[in-house]
Amino acid sequence: MSQDGGAYAVGVDLGGSHVMAALVDRQGKIGDRHELDLEDHDPSKVVSGLVGCVKSALADAKSREVAGIGIGSPGRVDAQTGMVHYSPNFEWHDVPLGELVQKEVGRPVHVLNDARAATLGEYTFGAGRGTRDFLMLTLGTGIGGGIVLDGRLVFGHGWTTGEVGHHQIRAGDGFVCSCGKVGCFEAQASGTGLLRHVLAAAPSFPRSQLTRRVRKVGTKLIRKAAEEGDQHARLAWDRWIDDLAIGLANLITVLNPERIALGGGVSSADDFMLKPLLPKVRALTTMADPMGFEIVTAQLENDAGAIGAATHVLQLA
Amino acid sequence: MSQDGGAYAVGVDLGGSHVMAALVDRQGKIGDRHELDLEDHDPSKVVSGLVGCVKSALADAKSREVAGIGIGSPGRVDAQTGMVHYSPNFEWHDVPLGELVQKEVGRPVHVLNDARAATLGEYTFGAGRGTRDFLMLTLGTGIGGGIVLDGRLVFGHGWTTGEVGHHQIRAGDGFVCSCGKVGCFEAQASGTGLLRHVLAAAPSFPRSQLTRRVRKVGTKLIRKAAEEGDQHARLAWDRWIDDLAIGLANLITVLNPERIALGGGVSSADDFMLKPLLPKVRALTTMADPMGFEIVTAQLENDAGAIGAATHVLQLA
Repeated sequence: MSQDGGAYAVGVDLGGSHVMAALVDRQGKIGDRHELDLEDHDPSKVVSGLVGCVKSALADAKSREVAGIGIGSPGRVDAQTGMVHYSPNFEWHDVPLGELVQKEVGRPVHVLNDARAATLGEYTFGAGRGTRDFLMLTLGTGIGGGIVLDGRLVFGHGWTTGEVGHHQIRAGDGFVCSCGKVGCFEAQASGTGLLRHVLAAAPSFPRSQLTRRVRKVGTKLIRKAAEEGDQHARLAWDRWIDDLAIGLANLITVLNPERIALGGGVSSADDFMLKPLLPKVRALTTMADPMGFEIVTAQLENDAGAIGAATHVLQLA
Repeated sequence: MSQDGGAYAVGVDLGGSHVMAALVDRQGKIGDRHELDLEDHDPSKVVSGLVGCVKSALADAKSREVAGIGIGSPGRVDAQTGMVHYSPNFEWHDVPLGELVQKEVGRPVHVLNDARAATLGEYTFGAGRGTRDFLMLTLGTGIGGGIVLDGRLVFGHGWTTGEVGHHQIRAGDGFVCSCGKVGCFEAQASGTGLLRHVLAAAPSFPRSQLTRRVRKVGTKLIRKAAEEGDQHARLAWDRWIDDLAIGLANLITVLNPERIALGGGVSSADDFMLKPLLPKVRALTTMADPMGFEIVTAQLENDAGAIGAATHVLQLA
């Protein structure tokens, strides 16, 4: 192994139904993506599928030195031991993912939460570059997050720092969240939250086509309908923006980041989104400097997790 | 000056109506307190009162080496330059407090936000000792806070990390906060929040003595009345506990601290408070480990700010 512990690492993005592994260099450049759909959530099946992808990525390295394997995994992950304590997606409890993979590939393996991995990727090579205090949010089925403060990705005492989706913003009048609480940021302002706002607005639009078709239509089409002036979609979009602004302002208030990157299909931070969103966030930023932050679109798209997981390994090497 | 930059620093706690300065050593031991009531908020008057206290504390040092002066000040403070950008208590905008004091005392002066100073004091010598991820909250007129993650007090891009009082927990159905937003944690769960819950419950208790006297009675007596079984006080207390639990669970969810210390008159974290509070916080901690944190009473009381401000100087020296 070279002085710097190898110039490459394999980054793995493990999702609920899909795994991708690729070789990543110290500049964040990603090689060929080796992917597999996961049909079975049994740990040994997931590990064997994952290891297959990792081996293909390792083969890409040829004679180049590889520092190790970094895996971004859903759930509560101990980044010291590689233990997945709990993953609702996989229904896993205490699966020693790092150890299981290490046994198969015979190289150092580090595991961290997938949203934290994506945050590290964006911070180092994407939308967070040049900042010291950075927040990454992915608006999808839920809201995933990661926090960089004073130049460091923070993990917390039990590895859950950054689970911003489950802070309550409407404890008294919000939607019931998948976690059972009322008015979580995620219940109100994720992609799924946008669908809920469509349904909540349905009584005002008895003849709306959207109501019946909301699950099929999906968030991108609702956004498109709002942009094209559909009244029902527009009201839902406005209410969604209101709740997104509350949650963002809360995080700015507590954490005071310089920049927030939004990822996920619904959230490309363009004019249609930022024009109503930014003034609302600023109006709610009563303690932090209301002009002291920016909101941007994440840059690495689906590669953020794998790049971040590999970067985590390279920073430790 | 010695190798270690001096074994002592003067710590100053600057409040809206009071200033206290004292010599503090590297073990957090505080000497005689030199105090003054402030009647005028004009910067030059505040500085001259503060400098008087500092000079008395410096005199206590005799021939011992003093690394500098640390000041905990209300408001948005740039801890690099000592500039108080904004302080609602003093109605100050861009007052160069550090520079003004340094001119008078001819020694290095460092200024940081008072709640952050108290957090550093408690973290280093009080309720936060032995942790790496620590949160300090002071429940008083408002809710002040400070955050230690991975062993470091975090300040944020614009020096406002830790302004936890102004994150909204009841954006739809809460009280109007002093900052103008609806349902801030501070509006619901500060000492003032408890008074509001008394008034909100008043219609259910038309003959209650509390309603008319609530401002005079104060939070400690309301707590006492609740403990003694007064129904009106008890309902208000229960609702206050509910809102305190929501805010605490939010902060645990986002930050994942190992320990939270509560300071301020109303909040001694004894059985009467923790017995109802803890199960509620745990029930709302859906993402972090619900048994992975503890809530304790702050230990340094009114000295936390001065000890923390001095410690800040000694750590930089």
